[in-house]
Amino acid sequence: MLRALLTYPPKPMLRSRMIPKKTFSALHREEEGGVSMVQGASRGIGLEFVRQLLEKNDKGQVVATCRNPDGATGLLELKRKFMERLNILPLDVRNESTIEAAAASVKENHGSLNLLINASGILSIPGVLQPETTLSKVQKSSLLLAYEVNAVGPTLVIKHMWPLLKAGGGSGTKREFAVVANISARVSSIGDNGLGGWHSYRASKTALNQLTKNISLEFARRKDPIVCILLHPGTVDTDLSRPFQRNVPEGKLFSREFSVQKLLGIIDGAKSSDNGKLFAWDGSTIPW
Amino acid sequence: MLRALLTYPPKPMLRSRMIPKKTFSALHREEEGGVSMVQGASRGIGLEFVRQLLEKNDKGQVVATCRNPDGATGLLELKRKFMERLNILPLDVRNESTIEAAAASVKENHGSLNLLINASGILSIPGVLQPETTLSKVQKSSLLLAYEVNAVGPTLVIKHMWPLLKAGGGSGTKREFAVVANISARVSSIGDNGLGGWHSYRASKTALNQLTKNISLEFARRKDPIVCILLHPGTVDTDLSRPFQRNVPEGKLFSREFSVQKLLGIIDGAKSSDNGKLFAWDGSTIPW
Repeated sequence: MLRALLTYPPKPMLRSRMIPKKTFSALHREEEGGVSMVQGASRGIGLEFVRQLLEKNDKGQVVATCRNPDGATGLLELKRKFMERLNILPLDVRNESTIEAAAASVKENHGSLNLLINASGILSIPGVLQPETTLSKVQKSSLLLAYEVNAVGPTLVIKHMWPLLKAGGGSGTKREFAVVANISARVSSIGDNGLGGWHSYRASKTALNQLTKNISLEFARRKDPIVCILLHPGTVDTDLSRPFQRNVPEGKLFSREFSVQKLLGIIDGAKSSDNGKLFAWDGSTIPW
Repeated sequence: MLRALLTYPPKPMLRSRMIPKKTFSALHREEEGGVSMVQGASRGIGLEFVRQLLEKNDKGQVVATCRNPDGATGLLELKRKFMERLNILPLDVRNESTIEAAAASVKENHGSLNLLINASGILSIPGVLQPETTLSKVQKSSLLLAYEVNAVGPTLVIKHMWPLLKAGGGSGTKREFAVVANISARVSSIGDNGLGGWHSYRASKTALNQLTKNISLEFARRKDPIVCILLHPGTVDTDLSRPFQRNVPEGKLFSREFSVQKLLGIIDGAKSSDNGKLFAWDGSTIPW
């Protein structure tokens, strides 16, 4: 039963097998509301993106990925309400074969993508990864783990979703292009760094900024209809920020609803000149 | 015989064991010319730093580290000429225990450090790591390897040399502080990135910039007498750049002698306000 919930209803065989590929793709591009993927959707900001994409629009498909769909209670709840519009797929950014499998599944079921939000990310894991307060506590294993999840993971997801985003562009949406939105953070900024600390997290997000810029340049050079942006959500009340919330000034700890509403505003209003830029939740750009 | 060449002459037992530690350290700080470490010194820019530190000054100790001292012919040649002033130690940035052992050896033999140059770095290894020309060629293993060597490695070296640099400060040199100089690259700049490509290398050097900035902030906050800078050597005629030299405009491929001379000028003239900045070979700052 659970498994059935997690499988997007396959298209009728006629549609996917008997119509020539090009026509199929063309038909698909006219799907109203477009197809959005939220990677890292089981909780926090990712889950809220899925909720708002479903609740604020009356059309459009959402592909939500997470490591363990069976345990993703928030997504399963949404699935009961948005049965036809929500497709939950397993994807672990540390395991590239799961990324490839998710891309193959999206290709088979949707044909293309119009939006990819990379929302997965780690800051701390009790006993494994702790944001460093001093250089003397920096561990090789922490640096590598944060980099693998926060920088390498989203890059590999874009790599495998690229053909789908290129096929999708802005079709079915109000935009003229597909959008890749990577969740970064203000602490990724080198120019804005006045405090130090959090070495593993900071460096991984700084690298994500560079990788996203790099990718945005290639998409632009190839004239692919894809715009890549980086987003700083503010400090949001999620599991990720919970251990560190006591240092947040009053009024600066945002609800997930507020932050994601702001970020979706930036995504929906994205211009091609935004390609490769880092935006805060309020739309201001953050220096590198 | 070879082994003997590689071992710095141990101090007389009297000095290191029978004089109280504080006095020993104070004595040590007066050593003229200071103690410099070049990490990644077997070839290329690192080897040239060692050569110039020895040849351009008539005093001062140089600790040169590399993965395999026995095979470091360039260093062994210098050792024959500068027997008393050059100390060659094994250090592999991917193996933290070798970093700790090198720090212990420097502590035992020199007591402190006044300069640390992190010169090791990888761009390409035939069959293993190839600078990427497109996102579709980006491999997880390449991203992780470049990060481990180019970003994690130098960070761990600073971590373990920190107490020695703090003890050394500017003593014996014309500076008032010790200097950590990490070799970065213009392609690390996100703001300056107009071409894309070289994902693994770029992202690792961008992360190195952030980590260096982070460390520089902690040293400043603690009032440690250490200034951290990042250096772009230009495109230098070394093994690292050789496969890519055909794209370098005429007059823009520097000799190692020229580049290192310029970089040593920046190091020797470093001011405390340079802390945490990225400089090109000509002294100009590069945006993040």
